[in-house]
Amino acid sequence: MSIQLIDALHAHRRIRPFVHQTPCLTSGALDQMTRATLHFKCENFQKSGSFKMRGALNSTLSLNEEQARHGIVAHSAGNHGGALALAGQLQGIKTTIVVPEDASRTKLEAIADYGARIISCAPTWEAREATVEEIVSAQGATYIHPVNQATVMAGQGTVALEILHQCSQLDAVVIPVGGGGLISGMATVLKEIAPEIEVIGVEPTGASSGARSFETGRYGADPSAQISTIADGLAAPITPETFSVIRDKVDRFLTVSDRQIEEAMILIWTRMKMIVEPAAAAALAAVMSEQSLFAGQNIALVMTGGNVDLKNLPWS
Amino acid sequence: MSIQLIDALHAHRRIRPFVHQTPCLTSGALDQMTRATLHFKCENFQKSGSFKMRGALNSTLSLNEEQARHGIVAHSAGNHGGALALAGQLQGIKTTIVVPEDASRTKLEAIADYGARIISCAPTWEAREATVEEIVSAQGATYIHPVNQATVMAGQGTVALEILHQCSQLDAVVIPVGGGGLISGMATVLKEIAPEIEVIGVEPTGASSGARSFETGRYGADPSAQISTIADGLAAPITPETFSVIRDKVDRFLTVSDRQIEEAMILIWTRMKMIVEPAAAAALAAVMSEQSLFAGQNIALVMTGGNVDLKNLPWS
Repeated sequence: MSIQLIDALHAHRRIRPFVHQTPCLTSGALDQMTRATLHFKCENFQKSGSFKMRGALNSTLSLNEEQARHGIVAHSAGNHGGALALAGQLQGIKTTIVVPEDASRTKLEAIADYGARIISCAPTWEAREATVEEIVSAQGATYIHPVNQATVMAGQGTVALEILHQCSQLDAVVIPVGGGGLISGMATVLKEIAPEIEVIGVEPTGASSGARSFETGRYGADPSAQISTIADGLAAPITPETFSVIRDKVDRFLTVSDRQIEEAMILIWTRMKMIVEPAAAAALAAVMSEQSLFAGQNIALVMTGGNVDLKNLPWS
Repeated sequence: MSIQLIDALHAHRRIRPFVHQTPCLTSGALDQMTRATLHFKCENFQKSGSFKMRGALNSTLSLNEEQARHGIVAHSAGNHGGALALAGQLQGIKTTIVVPEDASRTKLEAIADYGARIISCAPTWEAREATVEEIVSAQGATYIHPVNQATVMAGQGTVALEILHQCSQLDAVVIPVGGGGLISGMATVLKEIAPEIEVIGVEPTGASSGARSFETGRYGADPSAQISTIADGLAAPITPETFSVIRDKVDRFLTVSDRQIEEAMILIWTRMKMIVEPAAAAALAAVMSEQSLFAGQNIALVMTGGNVDLKNLPWS
C-alpha cells in the first residue's frame, strides 16, 4: 500500500477548512547553538494537539454516507485516538476508541472530552486488534488504522505540502518516526516535488525498527522486540507497508537516546516557550547530535505534537 | 512621577528595531470555557522571556554617551535583571545586576548567560538598595529602577500600543500587577487613546498591595506585609509612584488565589501549548473567576512572561 502525490493534494483540499495551517517558527538561540537555520513546523499547535488530526480528518471526510452512519473504530493509547475522537465529534460520526488498560489518564481524558466511546482491553497488540474486530463485526464500523491506511498517509503528507509553501531553500526535513505513517506520506510528497531535499527519519534508540530495517534493506521490525523510550508517540514499530515507502523514499535515519530527547525538549520549552512532546523533541535531538552533518543547512523539523502529562514530565 | 502618551510612542519608535512585536493569540477552547473572546498578548515570547525587555531597552537606549560608558546597575531576582543584562549586552553597555542570595539558579543563569556581572547580597530590600548605591558611587553607573523610572514605564506602555493595533473592539485589558510599572505605562496609553476600554489590574491574594490601596484610595503597601505567592513575578508591592497612576487610570482590581493561578497556568500550557509563568496565568485566572463580569466581552490578557524553572513547577 502506498499513496501518490495527488492523494496528499486532494487530502489537503479536503481537510484544509477544518485544520490549522500551523506556523513554521524559528529561534535565534537554537540556530546559534546548532549553527544551522531551523524551521519548526508546529503541529503541536494543531487541533487535538498533534499532526494525527490530518490523517484522522482525511479518513472521516473520505467515508461515504453509509460508512459514516455505522461509525468508526480504532485502537490507540495516544494521539491517533484523540484525533479520531475529535474528527468524529466535528462531523457527528459515532467514534469508538479501544484503549489498553495501561493508557495514561491524560490521554483517556482527551479522548473522552471529545465525546468518543472508550472500550478498555488488555495491554497487548493482539487484544487491541481483536477488540477492534469485534466492534467492526458487531456494529459495521469502519476501522481507521493509525498508519496502514491510504487516507491516513495522505493526510499526514499534507504537513510536507505546507512546509514547502512556508519555507524556501530547504536542505533537509527531519521527521520523527513511530509507525511510519507521517514519514511515508511526507516523503511521497517531498520526493515528487522537491527531490533534492534530504528526507531524514529519527527514532529513539529504544524504538528503532525503522533505522534497523533501513540499514539492512529488509523489514526487520521484530514484534517481540522490547520497545523502551520516553517518546511515547514513537513507541511503535514501523509496518511492512510503511517500510516499503521508507526504503524507496527516505535518505537517512538517525537515532537518539532518551537523554538527548529530554535535553532537546528542555531547550525547546525554555528557549521557544512552547510545549512539545518527547517525540517532537527527537527531531531537534537528531540535529544537535549531528552538528557537522547539518552545519550551515536550512532544516525543517516536524514538531509532531504537544500532548504531555504535565504531572509526569521526564525530568520530574 | 508619571509619563505621557507621547513618551510611550517615542519609546516604541526607539525599541521597535530590537524587540519582537509579539503575537496576540486566541484559543477556541478557552473562549468556550470563559464564554468570552480572549486575546493573549504573548510577551512570554519576547526577548529575554518577558515584557521587561521593553522598559530595559528603552532605558539603555535613552542613556547619553557618558552614561553608557559608566554602565548600568539594578537589583533583581528575576525578569528585570535578565532583560537589563540582555539590553546591556546588545548595546555593549557594562551591566551589573545585584541579586539576593536566595534567587533561583535558573534566573541567575539567564543573567550570567547574557554576560552581566552578578553581585550577590543579603535577601532584603535594604541590602539590595544599599549594594546598588555602592556601585553607583564607586563606578558612576546609572541605576535602572524596575518600576519607578519614566523610561521603564514608557517602555512597558508599548505593550498597550501593540494591543490596540492588533485587537479591535476590546472591552477590557487585564494586566497582572507586581510593582505596577507595566499597568502604569499601559493605563496611560489606554486611557488617552481608548478611554472606553476597561483597565483591570490583577494581583495574587498573597501580594495584593495594589488592590488594597485601590479600594481605600490611599497608598497602603506596608513594606513589612508578608508577601506570599507562587507568582514570583508579582511578589512585589506597588510603589507610591505607580499608585498615583493606578489611582487615576485603573478601573478595577481583581485578586486571585495561588490555586486559581496554578489551574489557569495548566489550562494555558495544555490548551495553547505555550509556556507562561504564574504571573501571566493570573490574568486568565481573573477572567475565569469572574465569568459573569466578562461573559460576551472582547478581552486582552497580558501574558507577562514565560520564564519558569521546569524542575520546580507549582504542581510538581
